[in-house]
Amino acid sequence: MRGKLFVVTVTLMLVASSATALHGRRSLPKSQTKTLVERLGYPRDAKLLIVHADDLGAAHSINSASIKALESGLVSSASIMVPCPWLPEIAAYARSHPEADFGLHLTLTSEWNLYRWGPVLGKELVPSLLDANGYLYPLENEAAAHMDIKEAEAEIRAQIARARTLGIQPTHLDSHMGTLYEGKTLFEMLVRVARDNKLPFRVSQEWFTRASFMPSLLGPDVVVLDRTISIEPNVAPEDWSKFYTNEIKSLRPGVTVMIVHLGFADEELKGMTSGHSNWGAEWRQRDFDFVTSEVFRKLLKENNVKLITWREIGKLVTVARP
Amino acid sequence: MRGKLFVVTVTLMLVASSATALHGRRSLPKSQTKTLVERLGYPRDAKLLIVHADDLGAAHSINSASIKALESGLVSSASIMVPCPWLPEIAAYARSHPEADFGLHLTLTSEWNLYRWGPVLGKELVPSLLDANGYLYPLENEAAAHMDIKEAEAEIRAQIARARTLGIQPTHLDSHMGTLYEGKTLFEMLVRVARDNKLPFRVSQEWFTRASFMPSLLGPDVVVLDRTISIEPNVAPEDWSKFYTNEIKSLRPGVTVMIVHLGFADEELKGMTSGHSNWGAEWRQRDFDFVTSEVFRKLLKENNVKLITWREIGKLVTVARP
Repeated sequence: MRGKLFVVTVTLMLVASSATALHGRRSLPKSQTKTLVERLGYPRDAKLLIVHADDLGAAHSINSASIKALESGLVSSASIMVPCPWLPEIAAYARSHPEADFGLHLTLTSEWNLYRWGPVLGKELVPSLLDANGYLYPLENEAAAHMDIKEAEAEIRAQIARARTLGIQPTHLDSHMGTLYEGKTLFEMLVRVARDNKLPFRVSQEWFTRASFMPSLLGPDVVVLDRTISIEPNVAPEDWSKFYTNEIKSLRPGVTVMIVHLGFADEELKGMTSGHSNWGAEWRQRDFDFVTSEVFRKLLKENNVKLITWREIGKLVTVARP
Repeated sequence: MRGKLFVVTVTLMLVASSATALHGRRSLPKSQTKTLVERLGYPRDAKLLIVHADDLGAAHSINSASIKALESGLVSSASIMVPCPWLPEIAAYARSHPEADFGLHLTLTSEWNLYRWGPVLGKELVPSLLDANGYLYPLENEAAAHMDIKEAEAEIRAQIARARTLGIQPTHLDSHMGTLYEGKTLFEMLVRVARDNKLPFRVSQEWFTRASFMPSLLGPDVVVLDRTISIEPNVAPEDWSKFYTNEIKSLRPGVTVMIVHLGFADEELKGMTSGHSNWGAEWRQRDFDFVTSEVFRKLLKENNVKLITWREIGKLVTVARP
């Protein structure tokens, strides 16, 4: 997940008076009179965190760094881009590590200049998803502007099917570059596809302030996380550790997802992200360095932050939709 | 190009009594009463060599190493795999280096375990080219056994079209892993597609001993190279330099193509080729090290070997088919 929406939402997190105020924007169904942490079996003041790596499958460097971080125990979850060429590598890992918490990072964009991918479905079936060169559009707003929603839905469902064919049992869904949060029709489709697959998906209370179309599309079976942490281009490289440290120190009770983009700043990743410093090779190396550091481990411990996975969230969905 | 055919052809080269003997197997049209070197404007005893890098577009490591080798002047030509994800990188290079000699390495296989690609055409149009996971078949014989020839031809033509859309002006055609040399029907298709595109394609006199179906399919407009050098798995890593040295020292007059597979043995290439030592990361590093060495430069000079490109061969095709 990357994109403009989250530049805004992080800002909103900082100005929002309280989680309760935002929570109050939805008409709450009975099953949610308990807070999300309580529904998960924790005391009301528990600080639960999903540390989530995005973009697996996109590059060998990203797979290697993400696997190393997952195995450090400090990253608890990740999501996979099915149309990308390194999918078979992460699928092999998922098959041999069935305990790992992998979702699908549903992908309707191909954003790098020198290294690109197309849809899972053939271009004859999903012409509206493709740029002039036959790849997925580079940007989320271009993708959203051109797409036929039926084609997008067919492609998303095909991505889920291919993941399952390769032995990935996804625990959750989210959207690469936030394309599926670009508007009501797209978000409605994500809700529908997630429901049909009995899977939770990434959606967070504080987004509703900007995306007012969201709450009315969510039934009582949908689990909404309390908030999202996502570092953005306005943070200087030298402030990386400071940003994350402040976020952990000021973490409020509830379920927060911290989205990170992991990779090694090697030749492959530098080549792939050339021309993009945002979410580029050095960015991903900084994220990797921080989330696998003893500083991060100590911060989580000292601030009583407990890591959880999407698997726990998924159980609530199963209860609501048996 | 990789594959069984060439294990055999290299052996054949060593036992063939002379180029003339093989040449005699074809009924020669009038335009070929001159030798190929003479038609190219060189004296009959000239030793002409195309040093050709295969598999461009397959990985960033392969692109980087091949570009470096081309720029050393010791590799004269290369061919590009259009369905691969790093195509845009090499296409950008081709656009900015219109003098570089790039052909298309027509691709109907996706042979690595952890990193794979599909066809340019959608899977609904070319179902016979795809394995159970929706990628091109791993092996050339599997691909050949399953394919509908009309689908294969449509895919090959789509690869040429996509290359041109991206600004690549191919100088020649050849076939990744030799799939299009797997039998009469496939080879006939290659001849047809090359003719329609007014392009020369890789075919070599000494292949005819094994592939007896070939000569009758070649019209007078087809240029047949005199021989091929291609290192094979029976050469031990420590004998790499010795193999190439012997080949250059014993080079006979005529046009020879020396096929090399270049890459850096970095994390990307090790990941991509994991489980394959043949044509793997270390193999490609050894090829790179040799063809960019001063030893190779000196050998070419001392043995009066002149490097040429496919562009010169292509002019003969244009003359024959104005």
